[in-house]
Amino acid sequence: MTDFDLKYEEYAKKFEKTLDGFCEKLDCKPQLLADSLKYSLKLGGKRIRPVLMLATADMLGVEEERVMPFALALELVHTYSLIHDDLPEMDNDDFRRGKPSNHKVFGVGNAVLAGDGLLNTAYSILFGECFNGGEYVSAAKYICDCAGIYGMIAGQSADLAHENDKEINEDILDFIYENKTAKLIMAAVVTPTILCGGKYYSELKAFGKELGFLFQITDDILDVEGSFENLGKSTGKDLREGKYTGVGLYGLDKCKIKADLICENCVKLMEGISADTSFMKKIAFFVRQRVG
Amino acid sequence: MTDFDLKYEEYAKKFEKTLDGFCEKLDCKPQLLADSLKYSLKLGGKRIRPVLMLATADMLGVEEERVMPFALALELVHTYSLIHDDLPEMDNDDFRRGKPSNHKVFGVGNAVLAGDGLLNTAYSILFGECFNGGEYVSAAKYICDCAGIYGMIAGQSADLAHENDKEINEDILDFIYENKTAKLIMAAVVTPTILCGGKYYSELKAFGKELGFLFQITDDILDVEGSFENLGKSTGKDLREGKYTGVGLYGLDKCKIKADLICENCVKLMEGISADTSFMKKIAFFVRQRVG
Repeated sequence: MTDFDLKYEEYAKKFEKTLDGFCEKLDCKPQLLADSLKYSLKLGGKRIRPVLMLATADMLGVEEERVMPFALALELVHTYSLIHDDLPEMDNDDFRRGKPSNHKVFGVGNAVLAGDGLLNTAYSILFGECFNGGEYVSAAKYICDCAGIYGMIAGQSADLAHENDKEINEDILDFIYENKTAKLIMAAVVTPTILCGGKYYSELKAFGKELGFLFQITDDILDVEGSFENLGKSTGKDLREGKYTGVGLYGLDKCKIKADLICENCVKLMEGISADTSFMKKIAFFVRQRVG
Repeated sequence: MTDFDLKYEEYAKKFEKTLDGFCEKLDCKPQLLADSLKYSLKLGGKRIRPVLMLATADMLGVEEERVMPFALALELVHTYSLIHDDLPEMDNDDFRRGKPSNHKVFGVGNAVLAGDGLLNTAYSILFGECFNGGEYVSAAKYICDCAGIYGMIAGQSADLAHENDKEINEDILDFIYENKTAKLIMAAVVTPTILCGGKYYSELKAFGKELGFLFQITDDILDVEGSFENLGKSTGKDLREGKYTGVGLYGLDKCKIKADLICENCVKLMEGISADTSFMKKIAFFVRQRVG
């Protein structure tokens, strides 16, 4: 294991401990509601958003305990979006992280409520943080707006609205990439800087956006080249269904070149910061090279 | 028109003006997303939650401009819950306020996103209010928790979990009434007291709970005795489908007696407050006697 791998694991484990504590205390009724929330939260995954938030906080000298509730809320928002996105009338995915999607286990009605419940709980956590002062309110509102109708929901809506387009338009693809995927990644790296008065705010915002694009373009590449075993979800579906993807617009080879360029941009953006940016640079390569 | 009717109309009109302003500024993309949000927000309805909030604020001497953003957020939360509740795998209602439900116009996928978008936007408005200080944070968190997994979502989940029960259990019926319906009504009357340091907090909380029960029990009665014309939605469905309703448990006549008693409780609770409670008392009769 490299130093990067060890560090990634350390952040991920710290977050997992917080998530475990949260799940243990979750005792809402009926039992089915609690079970369905926990099911999706404990499906695992790379926890890249919380890891990014903890790493950015580390780099900026923001105490871990200050960002952890925000990391938890952000992962709840991300998990809700996966549950709703997997629904039959949305992306219609039967598998998530190698296991049946929430609605395959609990039914569509309960899956809608599980998603609603995670979104609402994320904001209940964040309202709790708002008592700590203006910086906390700003950070909470930033996450909320990244997830909202001028952010992630707009991206999902555009994805749905254009699923039957005959040709892929680059502006629309960029809109979907930026909103559906990049906004929550931006939230992960921008939250810690808001909590410390905006240090390197514009660099981190730009980095989050680039890393979000990199995440989505590698996702599109993996939909073609990846395996169910590594990804834990069906592959080849996007191209088959003529969905808006980078591969659909540029072709596979050009997509890889674009991904490499975006990865370089991420590194360059971190070079403008006078702090220990080694982990942040490496996470760009990690996203570029991932197979699952 | 009685004084009560005139006052109700005045509150409702003020709220409608705020809602119109909000809808005018709504310019999220794609257009379909903006259209679907506005469609459900502008379907009308009695606006009982905002009216209750404005009336309670009036009674307590809390300035209208302080509660109005909370009234707006609460109506957004209520509207999201109707959109998701009407979905085919939930209550499966094709009509709402006499017009096609959101998913009948925009499709199920878009309706899921419209609901998500309204919920998220409600909290974005409330995070904006949190900059004004601790009382505002408390009020925002109260609304969020009333809507959440220990509130409205728990009620909806229980409603769904028990829809195939052979017999109706009174404890479960009370749980559904309290959480699915009463919690948002409680939020309407509790928000203004939180914003003025908790004056008559326990009386108003108890009043909100009773009024919520009254609202749901009259809803159950109207499902049997009401008309599509007045209600704007299908009737007779709950009993036919063996859903958890007061009529199903107590029978129609006992239900009406129960409703009268709850209405009396509402009035009694307001008699414990040394302020002008005439509107609050009359709104209980209004809920009891409504036909739509």
